[in-house]
Amino acid sequence: MAPVLNGRIIFNQIPEKYPVPGQTVIYDTSKKIDLDTVPLHGGVLIKILDLSIDPYMRSRMRPPEVRSYLPAFELGKSIVGFGIGMVIRSENAKYKAGDHVYGILECQHYSVHDTSDLRVLENKHKLPWSTYLGVLGMPGKTAYMAWKEFSDAKKGETVFVSAGAGPVGSLVLQLAKMDGLTTIGSAGSQEKLDFMKEIGTDVCFNYKEGNTLKILRDAKGIDIYWDNVGGETLDHALATAHLNGRFIECGMISGYNTGLNAPMPNLIQIIAQSLTLHGFIVTRLEAKYEEEFYKVLPPLVESGKIKHKEEITNGLEKVGDVILAVQKGDNKAKAVIHVADD
Amino acid sequence: MAPVLNGRIIFNQIPEKYPVPGQTVIYDTSKKIDLDTVPLHGGVLIKILDLSIDPYMRSRMRPPEVRSYLPAFELGKSIVGFGIGMVIRSENAKYKAGDHVYGILECQHYSVHDTSDLRVLENKHKLPWSTYLGVLGMPGKTAYMAWKEFSDAKKGETVFVSAGAGPVGSLVLQLAKMDGLTTIGSAGSQEKLDFMKEIGTDVCFNYKEGNTLKILRDAKGIDIYWDNVGGETLDHALATAHLNGRFIECGMISGYNTGLNAPMPNLIQIIAQSLTLHGFIVTRLEAKYEEEFYKVLPPLVESGKIKHKEEITNGLEKVGDVILAVQKGDNKAKAVIHVADD
Repeated sequence: MAPVLNGRIIFNQIPEKYPVPGQTVIYDTSKKIDLDTVPLHGGVLIKILDLSIDPYMRSRMRPPEVRSYLPAFELGKSIVGFGIGMVIRSENAKYKAGDHVYGILECQHYSVHDTSDLRVLENKHKLPWSTYLGVLGMPGKTAYMAWKEFSDAKKGETVFVSAGAGPVGSLVLQLAKMDGLTTIGSAGSQEKLDFMKEIGTDVCFNYKEGNTLKILRDAKGIDIYWDNVGGETLDHALATAHLNGRFIECGMISGYNTGLNAPMPNLIQIIAQSLTLHGFIVTRLEAKYEEEFYKVLPPLVESGKIKHKEEITNGLEKVGDVILAVQKGDNKAKAVIHVADD
Repeated sequence: MAPVLNGRIIFNQIPEKYPVPGQTVIYDTSKKIDLDTVPLHGGVLIKILDLSIDPYMRSRMRPPEVRSYLPAFELGKSIVGFGIGMVIRSENAKYKAGDHVYGILECQHYSVHDTSDLRVLENKHKLPWSTYLGVLGMPGKTAYMAWKEFSDAKKGETVFVSAGAGPVGSLVLQLAKMDGLTTIGSAGSQEKLDFMKEIGTDVCFNYKEGNTLKILRDAKGIDIYWDNVGGETLDHALATAHLNGRFIECGMISGYNTGLNAPMPNLIQIIAQSLTLHGFIVTRLEAKYEEEFYKVLPPLVESGKIKHKEEITNGLEKVGDVILAVQKGDNKAKAVIHVADD
């Protein structure tokens, strides 16, 4: 077969604040690939089907010398992210042509992969493959594993979840409800508030209206705060936390693009209320919870007991736009780029 | 016997920033007490010997409606603090005249006390009574109990202790050294640095020189941060914490008088490095560790294996000056007011 186009999303420029579509990353069409002959070096050739666009990706768009938990994207190379692919050819006996795999993939049409982090998806429940990027992917694992590990949730307690309509937050809200907690969720649009209502959230509010502190006070304070945003919202959660409150520090998107500069006068409540703040990265919890997660969650999703929502955008070339939408909160639900059908 | 003067330190005015001697608290000589006839209502009459002046006391000098872990001092009434007293008369069989007791006492010459929080000190090791306000009192308990509960210290790790020459910090540094850690301590005067050196601290530095971040980086980062000061120092500790670092949040004196307004751009490291921040108040750990503390620590202090330092000021009327010195860090060691001899 003749070589085919292998479009790629290349990291082109380190953004100063928000990533700029067509500038921070660009869609490059200069490369072709011969699917029959490209050397695999013991790995697999994958056709990319779906790519996940997530808030944390902003942290990789930095100079390599700045410390963070994942390496910086390399300028001039393809960016990478969680994705679903189909194996086309394999030199590793664990993977065969036609297998669907999940892992950190290059944002390209095709990719030669060394298989070190690839998981074959069984999909016994015949769910759409994109599901394995959201509620059954990294965001779902983040919510499930850290809730199990850190929440110490007790029936009757109150949890506040910021970015509560997102793929992480909405699963946390549902897990908390199952544990018998009163749930409070914040988001930035009516559509997101509606989704939080649909999944049974007791108190839903739009953080853009600026009443976070009042709403948490009216709710008589909180026992658990699931933090996806940091900044002033974190400070308000500190101000209203009960004695022995638990904070699960999952993300601080309010500062990813403009810096974490909000004053934090209520940090003192960490001491006054004997709070514990747990920071984590989901990959560090996977060894403990991964098999349980893939056993427990898919049937709950299939039966509709756990609800989730996706916003699928067609076309690899749209990655830059969707990256910006996710950073701004302009996306409507879990952002997925659909690259190709099976 | 005729009534005698019962001088008192009265809370006179809520300070805006630093407490002002002669204004925030005043020494009042308007009351007398008849030691033979004053009614005890089932409690004890105590002669106050020594009073502890501690950083946390600033948090009680606030309007009563502001939330904190201890009630605000009441305007026009005596302030209270940890102290040592001798029982003069008792209507409770657990206490007899001549007993030395430890507890939260009124800053007065004499006090009628309901005994609910009073501990009789045995002092088998014949240590000066003031010792039971410092290394063997609340500060010592704070260091010992929280180090046991939260440090998860492992030989070869590195700990950074701010206010490392104080009664809490200096005991933490010594406990950490006993556990085989590399120790880094900061303080604000040469005398304090000398004391940290004397107790075996590996790296001592004066935070006023503004090199905290560089010094922590040169030390290749930290595994544990014992925080007595909050603010920018906390941010620098976050910036240099290793994966799975533990932060023991004991105090934030940098903000007690001027507010916690330092920007905290490195809060994101809580997530990136999977840090855990433990806030606590020592009284909430006492049930678990108190008997162990009074068994383990006094012999170590008597033998000189654990070193400590006190700055004793004579005269109840000096309380206001010493309160300010402690807030500014101008005291030289654990601040004690000596009110009267046995």
